[in-house]
Amino acid sequence: MSGDPSAVRVDAQELRDLAARALTRRGATTEHARIQADHLVAAELRGHPSHGLRRLDVLVARIERGLIDPASQPELQWTAAAALTVDGARGFGPVVAYQAIAALRGRLPETGVAVAALHRTHHLGILAPYMEQLAAVGLVGLMLSSTEGLVHPWGGVGALLGTNPIAIGVPASGGDLAVDMSTGAVSAGKILDYRAKGMTLPDGWAVDAAGHRTTDAAEAAEGAISPFGGAKGYALGLAFGAIVGALTGTALGPDVHGTLDADSEVTKGDVIIAIDPVAFAGSDTRTALGDYFALIRGSGADGSTVTVPGDRARAARDRSCAEGVALSADVWARLHELSEAVDPAVADRNEDPS
Amino acid sequence: MSGDPSAVRVDAQELRDLAARALTRRGATTEHARIQADHLVAAELRGHPSHGLRRLDVLVARIERGLIDPASQPELQWTAAAALTVDGARGFGPVVAYQAIAALRGRLPETGVAVAALHRTHHLGILAPYMEQLAAVGLVGLMLSSTEGLVHPWGGVGALLGTNPIAIGVPASGGDLAVDMSTGAVSAGKILDYRAKGMTLPDGWAVDAAGHRTTDAAEAAEGAISPFGGAKGYALGLAFGAIVGALTGTALGPDVHGTLDADSEVTKGDVIIAIDPVAFAGSDTRTALGDYFALIRGSGADGSTVTVPGDRARAARDRSCAEGVALSADVWARLHELSEAVDPAVADRNEDPS
Repeated sequence: MSGDPSAVRVDAQELRDLAARALTRRGATTEHARIQADHLVAAELRGHPSHGLRRLDVLVARIERGLIDPASQPELQWTAAAALTVDGARGFGPVVAYQAIAALRGRLPETGVAVAALHRTHHLGILAPYMEQLAAVGLVGLMLSSTEGLVHPWGGVGALLGTNPIAIGVPASGGDLAVDMSTGAVSAGKILDYRAKGMTLPDGWAVDAAGHRTTDAAEAAEGAISPFGGAKGYALGLAFGAIVGALTGTALGPDVHGTLDADSEVTKGDVIIAIDPVAFAGSDTRTALGDYFALIRGSGADGSTVTVPGDRARAARDRSCAEGVALSADVWARLHELSEAVDPAVADRNEDPS
Repeated sequence: MSGDPSAVRVDAQELRDLAARALTRRGATTEHARIQADHLVAAELRGHPSHGLRRLDVLVARIERGLIDPASQPELQWTAAAALTVDGARGFGPVVAYQAIAALRGRLPETGVAVAALHRTHHLGILAPYMEQLAAVGLVGLMLSSTEGLVHPWGGVGALLGTNPIAIGVPASGGDLAVDMSTGAVSAGKILDYRAKGMTLPDGWAVDAAGHRTTDAAEAAEGAISPFGGAKGYALGLAFGAIVGALTGTALGPDVHGTLDADSEVTKGDVIIAIDPVAFAGSDTRTALGDYFALIRGSGADGSTVTVPGDRARAARDRSCAEGVALSADVWARLHELSEAVDPAVADRNEDPS
């Protein structure tokens, strides 16, 4: 709990407890609430508040409207020796994803590679922790998710592609690699921030409703986000979404719903690939990769810092654990409301954090 | 064979025969020569001459120096139920890759997913045809290769990353998706072209030897290519190379050799992932994906054409098959030289193509 007027610093465990309480009071099992709450806080720890406790509101609203079943059990079925089909049964994303990953890990000694395809599963949240977990035990991971249509095709009009993120984990000595990125040039939230502040967008972030590049945040909010990296980023985002659609049978592009809103069934999908590199290479490549990453980290031009994906999140997490999680005051206040709103009898537990 | 002064149009089969002859005369088996020659022509057909017959010179030189064994048999070993380890035995890339893909396909009915990790394998050439082959039989494919260090880390100095390409295939009615792209902003060949013509580079393509952005092609040639898409493209390129390194145990970054040069052992690696979507989704998603891609193709702003990855290559291939392959005169002349240089007795088969 720190001095910045717009932010507090709060112990991560306190955040986990409050968020879990908000969920158990709405029917989540203790275990499911704990996993979902931990995962929201995991985003805060890594400096990604957009995927953090701010999302609790939508989760709560979706539970209250019967869209999320906070006590459901996912159905995991091995439909082939290395193919796991997962019906999330409208449960919390992290609950389903961690069960799927545990099943994949259990299969790897036999197959070396295993893939899970998830449907009827809610937002997985920040993807990095899943990849970090695989990398920490020496496994390579690759994840794809489909998301709401927000991105325009290269040269095209309309928000026909999701921001379809990719995450990758590769184990290495001295710090595993963990990529977690969307295939949009920028998040929808950032464009809304710019609009709220009356700021001009950098060129290349978005197009207007007619498909023309714009730096006007209000026009962009009516248009679509551009893919990152031009035609190449468009190709990847489309392909990632297509892989998810092909393996999960879930909705495509503008038919994807239920991640951001609080009033429609979740129709997106997720794919998780887990690979044991030792099954192939026969030897542990972590040292060689660690040496290579050290070379990369030491290549800064003019004294600038070069990071390997995962480095920044690791540093943010270390700092958050030592100093507490930096949280905006409104999110902190809302967290208290949500953790108490259902059962007034516990309102007296509310204590001013400042 | 057409009228453009700097180009000829040649029937694809004639090109395949000439290229295969250049290889059989240097010890390649008829079958290996045919596969490698077909794959070079496959790049020409799709309008990617950088991966076409221009590469025959390096292949020939590598055979003559004993670096490529044009009659070797790769060793394929299932090291786990879905994990195929492939020692290419210094053979032609396409020979090894097509054998690996055939083995993966044979395994899919049992496992649903299978992955091949290739080492001691020469340049696979254009990746799209492998993905097209998988997609044509209803399979999803994903390939990664490591390449020579040509790209700088984001914020860093030096050509420490390969252009590490990714290829993806997804089956869809009305035209499969086939991505095939490097993670560099531009190819090394294009920078050399600009230098040769004294042209200024677009900003963002490259940095100089000190890591500063440059539009001077000569400075760029001494520096490094930028990753496509800034920090995100850097993250992906590094991660793709790391996955290849982890699974194949092959060299990393600046230690990768043997794709472009004619004097060092090949030290790169390749990863091929094949997935049967029907093993997961339980139903064929090709129609749904085809409908979605049709929506994308129809989204052109102001009448512009929007393509799904694979569309352009398909159109180029159709045209090349109908009208002949457009080939630069120097490549055409060199193809004749190479197909005749070893055995003068067949020189009389040389006929003027014009």
